[in-house]
Amino acid sequence: MSGNGFGHLFRFTTFGESHGPAIGCVVDGVPARIPLTEADIQLYLDQRKPGQNRFTTQRREPDAVKILSGVFEGLTTGTSIGLLIENTDQRSKDYGEIKDTYRPGHADWVYQQKYGIRDYRGGGRSSARETAMRVAAGAIARKVLDALAPGLSIQGAMVQMGPHAIDRAAWDWAELSNNPFWCPDAKAAKAWEDYLDTIRKSGSSIGGVVEVVASGVPVGLGAPVYDKLDADLAHAMMSINAVKGVEIGDGFAAAALSGEENADEMRMGNDGCVKFLSNHAGGILGGISTGQDLVVRLAVKPTSSILTPKQSVDAKGNNVEVSTKGRHDPCVAIRAVPVAEAMMACTLADHLLRSLAQPRLP
Amino acid sequence: MSGNGFGHLFRFTTFGESHGPAIGCVVDGVPARIPLTEADIQLYLDQRKPGQNRFTTQRREPDAVKILSGVFEGLTTGTSIGLLIENTDQRSKDYGEIKDTYRPGHADWVYQQKYGIRDYRGGGRSSARETAMRVAAGAIARKVLDALAPGLSIQGAMVQMGPHAIDRAAWDWAELSNNPFWCPDAKAAKAWEDYLDTIRKSGSSIGGVVEVVASGVPVGLGAPVYDKLDADLAHAMMSINAVKGVEIGDGFAAAALSGEENADEMRMGNDGCVKFLSNHAGGILGGISTGQDLVVRLAVKPTSSILTPKQSVDAKGNNVEVSTKGRHDPCVAIRAVPVAEAMMACTLADHLLRSLAQPRLP
Amino acid sequence: MSGNGFGHLFRFTTFGESHGPAIGCVVDGVPARIPLTEADIQLYLDQRKPGQNRFTTQRREPDAVKILSGVFEGLTTGTSIGLLIENTDQRSKDYGEIKDTYRPGHADWVYQQKYGIRDYRGGGRSSARETAMRVAAGAIARKVLDALAPGLSIQGAMVQMGPHAIDRAAWDWAELSNNPFWCPDAKAAKAWEDYLDTIRKSGSSIGGVVEVVASGVPVGLGAPVYDKLDADLAHAMMSINAVKGVEIGDGFAAAALSGEENADEMRMGNDGCVKFLSNHAGGILGGISTGQDLVVRLAVKPTSSILTPKQSVDAKGNNVEVSTKGRHDPCVAIRAVPVAEAMMACTLADHLLRSLAQPRLP
Amino acid sequence: MSGNGFGHLFRFTTFGESHGPAIGCVVDGVPARIPLTEADIQLYLDQRKPGQNRFTTQRREPDAVKILSGVFEGLTTGTSIGLLIENTDQRSKDYGEIKDTYRPGHADWVYQQKYGIRDYRGGGRSSARETAMRVAAGAIARKVLDALAPGLSIQGAMVQMGPHAIDRAAWDWAELSNNPFWCPDAKAAKAWEDYLDTIRKSGSSIGGVVEVVASGVPVGLGAPVYDKLDADLAHAMMSINAVKGVEIGDGFAAAALSGEENADEMRMGNDGCVKFLSNHAGGILGGISTGQDLVVRLAVKPTSSILTPKQSVDAKGNNVEVSTKGRHDPCVAIRAVPVAEAMMACTLADHLLRSLAQPRLP
Repeated sequence: MSGNGFGHLFRFTTFGESHGPAIGCVVDGVPARIPLTEADIQLYLDQRKPGQNRFTTQRREPDAVKILSGVFEGLTTGTSIGLLIENTDQRSKDYGEIKDTYRPGHADWVYQQKYGIRDYRGGGRSSARETAMRVAAGAIARKVLDALAPGLSIQGAMVQMGPHAIDRAAWDWAELSNNPFWCPDAKAAKAWEDYLDTIRKSGSSIGGVVEVVASGVPVGLGAPVYDKLDADLAHAMMSINAVKGVEIGDGFAAAALSGEENADEMRMGNDGCVKFLSNHAGGILGGISTGQDLVVRLAVKPTSSILTPKQSVDAKGNNVEVSTKGRHDPCVAIRAVPVAEAMMACTLADHLLRSLAQPRLP
Repeated sequence: MSGNGFGHLFRFTTFGESHGPAIGCVVDGVPARIPLTEADIQLYLDQRKPGQNRFTTQRREPDAVKILSGVFEGLTTGTSIGLLIENTDQRSKDYGEIKDTYRPGHADWVYQQKYGIRDYRGGGRSSARETAMRVAAGAIARKVLDALAPGLSIQGAMVQMGPHAIDRAAWDWAELSNNPFWCPDAKAAKAWEDYLDTIRKSGSSIGGVVEVVASGVPVGLGAPVYDKLDADLAHAMMSINAVKGVEIGDGFAAAALSGEENADEMRMGNDGCVKFLSNHAGGILGGISTGQDLVVRLAVKPTSSILTPKQSVDAKGNNVEVSTKGRHDPCVAIRAVPVAEAMMACTLADHLLRSLAQPRLP
Repeated sequence: MSGNGFGHLFRFTTFGESHGPAIGCVVDGVPARIPLTEADIQLYLDQRKPGQNRFTTQRREPDAVKILSGVFEGLTTGTSIGLLIENTDQRSKDYGEIKDTYRPGHADWVYQQKYGIRDYRGGGRSSARETAMRVAAGAIARKVLDALAPGLSIQGAMVQMGPHAIDRAAWDWAELSNNPFWCPDAKAAKAWEDYLDTIRKSGSSIGGVVEVVASGVPVGLGAPVYDKLDADLAHAMMSINAVKGVEIGDGFAAAALSGEENADEMRMGNDGCVKFLSNHAGGILGGISTGQDLVVRLAVKPTSSILTPKQSVDAKGNNVEVSTKGRHDPCVAIRAVPVAEAMMACTLADHLLRSLAQPRLP
Repeated sequence: MSGNGFGHLFRFTTFGESHGPAIGCVVDGVPARIPLTEADIQLYLDQRKPGQNRFTTQRREPDAVKILSGVFEGLTTGTSIGLLIENTDQRSKDYGEIKDTYRPGHADWVYQQKYGIRDYRGGGRSSARETAMRVAAGAIARKVLDALAPGLSIQGAMVQMGPHAIDRAAWDWAELSNNPFWCPDAKAAKAWEDYLDTIRKSGSSIGGVVEVVASGVPVGLGAPVYDKLDADLAHAMMSINAVKGVEIGDGFAAAALSGEENADEMRMGNDGCVKFLSNHAGGILGGISTGQDLVVRLAVKPTSSILTPKQSVDAKGNNVEVSTKGRHDPCVAIRAVPVAEAMMACTLADHLLRSLAQPRLP
């Protein structure tokens, strides 16, 4: 109830602070006999890992995950899976000065107000370091999906950096591996590189928009009326650090449309299956998946860690100015991509298990 | 787990179909000795009630709520509160033709796929009629907030109809009672009236954007990291029928900002309290309320019930065309305003109780 | 979280006080397309109904249940099922004198201490009247079991009245319908009749032991390690009014046994299935059902409503004496039988759905 | 939902197998600013630790607990607390022979049936080794109780070994430290020593009964009607390995009493507080704590690991005979004492937080 877990039937519970000895989680509800190795998880952790290029924070950690339980001879056993990552590059001294000074836009002040204490080192529990465990849980969720919904795939991309959106007509998934931004538009990626270099060198930061698409989603996932699939996705995405908005399908643009423009018409296909002629709905109607691509976008704010001094207060009630000199991400939206994919995977795995728990009879 | 409830400590569970004998809910977790009458709930139900002007569906029901338990001699007793509203204007015949025909953009087809059966009359469980129970629960949540967080107030407004946004500089809460749109901008309201009349007469529909603001929210609500206050609000709002996007504070606009632009600086006030100089964050940092105004916006799609025939399929696998002739809402965003307020109230009441359950020691 | 619901995937939430306008519940998680009528539920409510003979309270209510939602044309729809029973025989005046006087052994005083208010009429929320909704939910759980685990049957019996236990060698299920005690031993039933008449006429009361047996339970139900099937059954049974003890299989007697005596040996049957040679374990090992008969016993205390004056206190802090003159049950264990059966059914339905949610892969 | 966690507001989730690299848990919901060190937890782990005398299994592990998160500079921070104990004395070879042979009375066969796979080494997840994490969580629960309900104390004792019960008139808490059985009756302890030596030397085992008493419990804990304090305690205790029965207060003996005999009369004390003249109820009425001593007893079956060969089956469907030669506990009830205390502490901490979440207004 104090908010450290996600999901109901596929559920994970995390612990750990940025500069404590380790972070970890327990993943619960995984069916038995699913193949799972540490390498399956490491693959996705490496995608999220910082310090891989000049556009992400230079904190360098191997983020080597250990499976402590729930897997035997390469297969899940149906029992809870314990995961652990030791923190190795903690450099506590970097953060000594924020002990008594609240960085504007960070969680420092509210944690102090709420709890009367906080592990201030590196942001403690509010650090994006926690998202490593989301990615680890997401890797396991993907294995569950592979086993129970073969053909389902999840891929995220960055579609806007600061004010610069991609050209959607140029979308090419193959481009993602050609740039450090998960950008599906080669031309935009090129422009972003220069743009972000300027931001980075000036010690500033910028926001972005991430889009996650799931294909091959079975029809019928979602638990109306309060755990609609879109409601749970909104919850999942908005729980990611720095996210300020979530939309499904046309999202906010749908507010400007007429019923005629927004209609996703249906036809019978030659294969006897229903086809939708468009996907304004983003793959969800009435809170239930339609089998179309599931399309979710999230707005990520710029990190508050910038070189320009900003007004703030300290623990003693003095007015102070704060600027951030150390390593940081100029555009945290980049690293939000694998995290958002992971949260999509966990949400779908949870709803897949939920759908099994309420079978329809013949 | 099948999705008919909302909240954890302040929790309500609803039941009922559009054209069944009644709808109802159980509200659980309400502290004892809070004054509560049916009139307290009816007040908000009347705000949501359809048929009050030409811009909402002409279904006419008194929506008279009965309290069946949990209140004794005008005070809550700490036990579960049962609420019931009988359905009186059911006109089942209106809907006979949709028994075997799936309306595009509605939940008809996915419910049939998921469950293999559905109460098709009036949309059954997927009908917006269910939102009456959200409003009823929200009224009780407000009483909880009145008792435990006096000074907290919640107010929603419509800030965009189709492509027409209000002028935010003209925002005047007092205008809400002067127009049928919960519009805080008198000039926009006037323009919307003509605009929506045209939509309505042509049998079309249009989307909109709703904004809900909570003032006087205590600092420290929210359960990081997965039940952040914004994550739970996103869940709450996205669970409302027809909502396709949710944003907090600057929301999607924040993606285009730099760290400098997005910073909410802090100063010590003369009263010894910290003041924020802006509110890009919408009252939430790190998933925890800052005490500033909580600002949430939701995108509402246009209803799919339109006069223009649209392509669809029927239960036998034939291609058909569907158009909706009966009563319907030309802009469902209007009636989403009291529902969104209710969901805000329930979310805050839940997190208020959660904060009591994890007190900080001296 | 305030305790008005039971179960996780098959879940019901109840409301209502003894002398309020109605009692009701919401049953959630029922798979779609299960046949269900009011008569299916009424059948079991009639078994629990008071006033059927001289050995149960003379309160007379038809206890006619209404299904308000979740069923369409005779089949469940997968949505939440609302149930309602109106209270008709309330006789509030009977209970006026207990407004300010706490009956020893009842929940009056603790409810007042916990909530600072209580609906004192007929015990309010703490009344055994609430168990009607358990029986109603149990009837739906049985339909779920019929559909998903055909062959599973649940039957309760009374095996001890006061100090008088049945002769287990004489156990005959067919005897249950021949006496008003659910007693499987004809001779014991005869003796109990005289015994309880004496108790009843003297205005006294007596305890009893109820045993519930489920046959045909699938192997593999139970969610170790904290939601073991026996742990959830213990929870279910101990939540019934007046129950003070729960045991599985040999229960407390097992504490006196050696490992040799307690061993349930296993042999391969001619049909290729494993057979157990005894059932000390009561059908559960390691928290998981073995497929043997599930055997649960519960100790029911005597009701505190007796004619003999007992020392107590009143709301003003005076010492008083309390005796109960009105209608009451001389042996509440009798009516606990259908309630315990219902709780067994609900627990098994819940775990059956849980087992579906965590399938083992090939 | 797969059963690896306990509690709602004070909640812990465990992972780990007997012979995996480590066991661990996440404790969630702990209020901030409670003093907590590893030594606070180690104190209770050492009480449970095997190998301390000849009456418990000779497995020797330091069971050294590490706090990985949620504590900063000696105080809890309100975030999730990660705990880890590395397994050091694993001796996998001891257990090789049970890979394909199901020990009667153990969970081997049902785990294999349920999951189609199991970590057979040392019982895997079903091993009593898991209870170390209960004790660790219980130690934290005690700190929560110390902070929020000062004066509350919890103490367990063994009151019956096999058929030999203690003399309750001789009860002396101080005796617990004078014998290896947590026995409060010096004479009984002496007799048990000889008795258990005989059992041990013959390679047999015996059951027992444990009683846990909590004093200084606040009035008003418990969430009727389904999460009654006794229902949650029954769940907690029955979830402990080898427990087959749970009773509160007089328990099964109450079934044989009359209403007159079972009555706990009340009087006003000179201090203006209500006094109970007896405690048949074991400190709970209507599911709510009365402030009297909370008295819970649990029946523990004899371990199935005995030297005498018993009939069983193997994985290939052959009939086999099984006997256990290695180290084991002749009376597992002994080590259940600190575990039962821990579960009592966790249940009370959970309900204490729940009571804070539903405050009664003036």
